Amino acid sequence: MIKEYIQTHKARFVAELIEWLRIPSISADSQHKKDMRRAAMFAKEKLQAAGCDKAELMETPGHPVVYAEKFVSPNAPTILVYGHYDVQPPDPIDLWLSPPFEPIVKDNKIFARGACDDKGQVFMHIKAFEAMMRLGQRPCNIKFMIEGEEEIGSAHLGEFVKKYKSQLEADAILISDTSMISLETPSITVGLRGLCYMEAEVIGPNRDLHSGVYGGAVANPANVLASMIASLHDEKGRVTIPGFYDKVMTLSDAERKELNKAPFSMTDYKRELGVHEVKGEEGFTTLERVGIRPTLDVNGIWGGYVGEGAKTVLPSKASAKISMRLVPNQTTDEIAELFTKHFKSIAPPSVKVKVTALHGGEPAVTPTDSAAYRAAEKAITEVFGKKPIPTRDGGSIPIVALFKKELGLDTVLLGFGLDTDAIHSPNEHFGTKNFLLGVETIFAFYQAFGTEMKTMKGN
Amino acid sequence: MIKEYIQTHKARFVAELIEWLRIPSISADSQHKKDMRRAAMFAKEKLQAAGCDKAELMETPGHPVVYAEKFVSPNAPTILVYGHYDVQPPDPIDLWLSPPFEPIVKDNKIFARGACDDKGQVFMHIKAFEAMMRLGQRPCNIKFMIEGEEEIGSAHLGEFVKKYKSQLEADAILISDTSMISLETPSITVGLRGLCYMEAEVIGPNRDLHSGVYGGAVANPANVLASMIASLHDEKGRVTIPGFYDKVMTLSDAERKELNKAPFSMTDYKRELGVHEVKGEEGFTTLERVGIRPTLDVNGIWGGYVGEGAKTVLPSKASAKISMRLVPNQTTDEIAELFTKHFKSIAPPSVKVKVTALHGGEPAVTPTDSAAYRAAEKAITEVFGKKPIPTRDGGSIPIVALFKKELGLDTVLLGFGLDTDAIHSPNEHFGTKNFLLGVETIFAFYQAFGTEMKTMKGN
Repeated sequence: MIKEYIQTHKARFVAELIEWLRIPSISADSQHKKDMRRAAMFAKEKLQAAGCDKAELMETPGHPVVYAEKFVSPNAPTILVYGHYDVQPPDPIDLWLSPPFEPIVKDNKIFARGACDDKGQVFMHIKAFEAMMRLGQRPCNIKFMIEGEEEIGSAHLGEFVKKYKSQLEADAILISDTSMISLETPSITVGLRGLCYMEAEVIGPNRDLHSGVYGGAVANPANVLASMIASLHDEKGRVTIPGFYDKVMTLSDAERKELNKAPFSMTDYKRELGVHEVKGEEGFTTLERVGIRPTLDVNGIWGGYVGEGAKTVLPSKASAKISMRLVPNQTTDEIAELFTKHFKSIAPPSVKVKVTALHGGEPAVTPTDSAAYRAAEKAITEVFGKKPIPTRDGGSIPIVALFKKELGLDTVLLGFGLDTDAIHSPNEHFGTKNFLLGVETIFAFYQAFGTEMKTMKGN
Repeated sequence: MIKEYIQTHKARFVAELIEWLRIPSISADSQHKKDMRRAAMFAKEKLQAAGCDKAELMETPGHPVVYAEKFVSPNAPTILVYGHYDVQPPDPIDLWLSPPFEPIVKDNKIFARGACDDKGQVFMHIKAFEAMMRLGQRPCNIKFMIEGEEEIGSAHLGEFVKKYKSQLEADAILISDTSMISLETPSITVGLRGLCYMEAEVIGPNRDLHSGVYGGAVANPANVLASMIASLHDEKGRVTIPGFYDKVMTLSDAERKELNKAPFSMTDYKRELGVHEVKGEEGFTTLERVGIRPTLDVNGIWGGYVGEGAKTVLPSKASAKISMRLVPNQTTDEIAELFTKHFKSIAPPSVKVKVTALHGGEPAVTPTDSAAYRAAEKAITEVFGKKPIPTRDGGSIPIVALFKKELGLDTVLLGFGLDTDAIHSPNEHFGTKNFLLGVETIFAFYQAFGTEMKTMKGN
């Protein structure tokens, strides 16, 4: 029945999603404030149309949260669906083969900023909910909380969740904002890295100088910044910030073995990325490097003359955005403090250094023995014909730790993206097959969760 | 008589210069191609008005050269004046207190891009020539060659000088494109560093990646570039490129002692630049570091996300403009080759590296025993009341080596700027007193050179 429903309505599903993707809801760019509200309104209206009793925009000091709910029965378990309608900035814009906010479907993929992360995945939920309502199979109460600040650190969500604690009460959280290994090897993310995103500025002379007149006699902030960044890793690829690894959760050999069972082809990985060799912390596999190890990366660097041709300038300052991915039990605040202290300590006396924490999110692990996880496992097995593998992802969804802390709820990360979807990159896309299988799986999840919860209560 | 002439006409001199400074003749920016021609035309017209027999724009494959001449007598010696009408780009534009191409006079200084480098200093020559003509004191034939590509490496000047060798014949070259120590301590530059300006690009994955999904597993080009740049200096501040110092001319202890006699206050130097400490090659003084030692500086660096806020991107590439100042007997081509070879050799196999030579100029030393140098010494002593100190400057004027090679002529670097004039920086300026004393000294130089040459021929 659900298969037929999807078959009948799939063209409309995609068309509606494309309409949503046209709205450039870039939360990081204050010029898009109105687009943010338009994108939120769109979600609200679709939730209403799909059958929610209540759907509204709830204000925060930043972008609004879309909240909606359908109350089915006091005996039914409650699912809280979380997602986000904001997207990453599209730059570098010149590398897009089609404009980021003019979605196109090509080779069975929807190309647009947000196609996968996260509008596309949120829309699967709206459509699965629509199907549940239309088909009259309603085993769960459903709440939706779709925020607009995920890509900028969910700055106001902590406050929001605290304030509306009782309204958000549920039995489990369901989020689709991750990827699976492949359609042939479905997986569920059970670990997420945290994020600590810093900005550092190295300040030298009080003005840009002529590199001939002063070169060699005054510290060059760009050279100094390069040296400081270089020193943040040792020759084994380990981060050199004192205390950085102190709280890192170590996995047992058995756990590491399990983790490395996920299918992984180094040849394909390198080919797909266009690199001759991978690089990372010594003593760990690629799956471990992104799954269970913390890292430090420059996300942006700038200083001096970057235009056409040659300008013989000795820049007065140079800056970098540097972020660290964290693993359990590192915390954002602690790592931000360690970074700041260390970065200032390695600055030579010939320069000044300014360090700012931009945003962060705590790492998280989700249990694999909850009713919601079992329901997800069952739904995937049903739709994909294979039991999903639990994996640990490199990305961050700060809300997972927040939900656990504030609402006491565990999350299931039921994601349908692929690592090759180029989220946060030019030409982001989402397979239409992934999208439609997602709708089907989420629908199946509702049914399975209803059953699981009854069984639990029965026990 | 010359003093009175300057007194009478100084307001007009400054007003005319300001008119020239209004033209944004930025040679590096192809959008200013028309402005380049306007600036050249302006110089041509002023040279004509001042009394040249001939004044014209001579085409090159790039920006035109302004050529003008006044033939006084076959018995008179000939001076070839070189200068440039092109200027550096004005960025970072937001640090200018007044717009770079809307000149203002404040505190007896003319503020504008090019005020000192080099329109202001070229204009002293035009006005000194005007005075020579009007006052009827004409001891020399004068040729002017004012080019439009100095700030981008004088790419077409070598060809030009070869082509017009006979037209450019002279007894000495006179250039005002350097600074003196101060109005109280006049000096003449006798050594100039060369320049070798490179651009390097480090290329990693074939697209920008999500720093969560891939961070720690793939080489980050920005981190790699930082490490590569860091490794270009050792802990003693020496450049690590193999062979870099092989041909560096070593000065005798006596020569170093002489060089360090120039007045220099470390306290003033640091205060003026706003730095707590200076930094450079161990074992050398600041005057030596900029005068007789080669150096390597990052002039610009960029990669990844540099906008507002946080974007969790692992950039697919990162780039830097890196230039080296050279000293006798290093050569641009050789150093460019050493740099390229070394930079490629230190790239880890996880990235690709592209290196391009942008431009260069050979280092030069000018003799202190020529008739032209003695004339310059005499002129300065007459106008400033003090014998000038010979100094070695950090900057580069590639044409000096070129003139020696192609025309067999030595140059006198009769500069009237100050190191504090912020050339190549925001708020470039030129003291009106420097400007007017420059006119007076150049006029005096013509007279002294006539006498010196007669004496030499008499011998």
